[in-house]
Amino acid sequence: MTQTRPAPPIAASQWFNTDEPVTLDALRGRVVVMEAFQMLCPGCVGHGLPQAGRVFETFSRDDVIVLGLHCVFEHQDAQTPVSLEAFLHEYRIGFPVGVDEAGGDGPLPRTMRNYAMQGTPTLILIDRKGHRRAQHFGLVPDLRLGAEIMALIREVSS
Amino acid sequence: MTQTRPAPPIAASQWFNTDEPVTLDALRGRVVVMEAFQMLCPGCVGHGLPQAGRVFETFSRDDVIVLGLHCVFEHQDAQTPVSLEAFLHEYRIGFPVGVDEAGGDGPLPRTMRNYAMQGTPTLILIDRKGHRRAQHFGLVPDLRLGAEIMALIREVSS
Amino acid sequence: MTQTRPAPPIAASQWFNTDEPVTLDALRGRVVVMEAFQMLCPGCVGHGLPQAGRVFETFSRDDVIVLGLHCVFEHQDAQTPVSLEAFLHEYRIGFPVGVDEAGGDGPLPRTMRNYAMQGTPTLILIDRKGHRRAQHFGLVPDLRLGAEIMALIREVSS
Amino acid sequence: MTQTRPAPPIAASQWFNTDEPVTLDALRGRVVVMEAFQMLCPGCVGHGLPQAGRVFETFSRDDVIVLGLHCVFEHQDAQTPVSLEAFLHEYRIGFPVGVDEAGGDGPLPRTMRNYAMQGTPTLILIDRKGHRRAQHFGLVPDLRLGAEIMALIREVSS
Repeated sequence: MTQTRPAPPIAASQWFNTDEPVTLDALRGRVVVMEAFQMLCPGCVGHGLPQAGRVFETFSRDDVIVLGLHCVFEHQDAQTPVSLEAFLHEYRIGFPVGVDEAGGDGPLPRTMRNYAMQGTPTLILIDRKGHRRAQHFGLVPDLRLGAEIMALIREVSS
Repeated sequence: MTQTRPAPPIAASQWFNTDEPVTLDALRGRVVVMEAFQMLCPGCVGHGLPQAGRVFETFSRDDVIVLGLHCVFEHQDAQTPVSLEAFLHEYRIGFPVGVDEAGGDGPLPRTMRNYAMQGTPTLILIDRKGHRRAQHFGLVPDLRLGAEIMALIREVSS
Repeated sequence: MTQTRPAPPIAASQWFNTDEPVTLDALRGRVVVMEAFQMLCPGCVGHGLPQAGRVFETFSRDDVIVLGLHCVFEHQDAQTPVSLEAFLHEYRIGFPVGVDEAGGDGPLPRTMRNYAMQGTPTLILIDRKGHRRAQHFGLVPDLRLGAEIMALIREVSS
Repeated sequence: MTQTRPAPPIAASQWFNTDEPVTLDALRGRVVVMEAFQMLCPGCVGHGLPQAGRVFETFSRDDVIVLGLHCVFEHQDAQTPVSLEAFLHEYRIGFPVGVDEAGGDGPLPRTMRNYAMQGTPTLILIDRKGHRRAQHFGLVPDLRLGAEIMALIREVSS
């Protein structure tokens, strides 16, 4: 996935685990690993989020920023921000998590639509220049993900 | 755990996956495996509920009835029946699940208090006569649980 | 599997983890769980033997005896008793293990042939009367195995 | 681990899964991942070798060469080349495996001694210039290993 334009911005109505809203622009210069999930999606709970947590623990925050994005496209009444907050507490998720903004046509929230995600979990890699470089729907093995992240870390940022 | 009195009744405000409310009295004659859980409890999602699902698939329903009981004692706003319903759908939980009735003093719902449960997950075994015979807080290995259930199956019911 | 005759005797050329050769006759009155394996069989190392170890730790030895049987039907030069002894040490296998006796026509050792085993791992259950009651080739879930063992424990022995 | 000298050569008495003996000199220009193991070491069988297999499947052989090295320092009679050959077949190990050469003082084979390994499994990373860059005794998480390998891949070789 070679890109000449920056990744679409994150449209979040609310953030957890951070004092200020997160923007990709402000993260320019670092690699961003974004885990798009739903709190009631078994593949997200069993695989995607634990993997994002391992990325968060493994790499230096000078190089890699891990973000969660709660992309609710079904069960909107069940997966509210109130429920999400309890979920993040119980699952000990420490990285910033945004709530993808509802709106527009259809059930897909804005960021999910702008990234053309197929579902959850989706893991997105953004390079130091702010370009989207990979978007994995479903499982990615840790070995491959570690390699992909390091390949982006080793790129010159400017 | 030897009992001379029937197990406390289940106080449920609502049931899922069943057309009628479930009562222990109506299940007399069969072994009951009751999984007390919270939908945002990682040990319940990762271990307790999958194990209850294996019990549900392994034993004949002529012998063993599996029940879930949603015992919310924290994050009450996050773990509402609306959220629970979506959770049961996404996790493909097919056995009947009751919502333990809030009420009385303190945060513990009624059945949880009447059984003196210490938390979730708690797995409770009730014999064919309706007597509580085991109450496991936390993990029980499958091998031991299979043996405990079969020991109750083999008891004469009257 | 209903049997009216005792299970075939174990034909072992050698035993480990026991001072005396084991015979099924001497174990009459107890349930016997026999794990037939080969030390270089991945399914035995990854599943069958760890499960036999869990059975050994879970049940009282007054009720259940766990035996291993090394049924070498391939790679005979590689899976010698010298190699087996080191294997049992490294994998911390504490229950008695017999070496199924080579001999007769073809590569199958005697006990394996007498039990008509299809391969390894095979788990065999023998009841208190000495009758073979189950023979599982491949994986058996722990929950089901726990139930099967308890069903035999609860049978009267005479 | 910064090195100015090439990694010690591999002293192997025998090779499997390759027509010719492997030398580090001949692999100069590529990253080498060397898994030192013993066939009866549970940590090697359960973790180290499966991980080496994943490395073998994940990276291009233009970039990364995976080698096994059978470093027998105990149970020498049990872990002979005859047994090793059957082990490699049964566990479907497809990358080249050398037998570390016995000799000299004490039980440690030569390569193991020259690398000052502490035991098995040990995973060694050698860069494109032939310098040893990492030596992990015990478990390395896949995520971290993937990153370490990619960091070496991205280095210029000359």
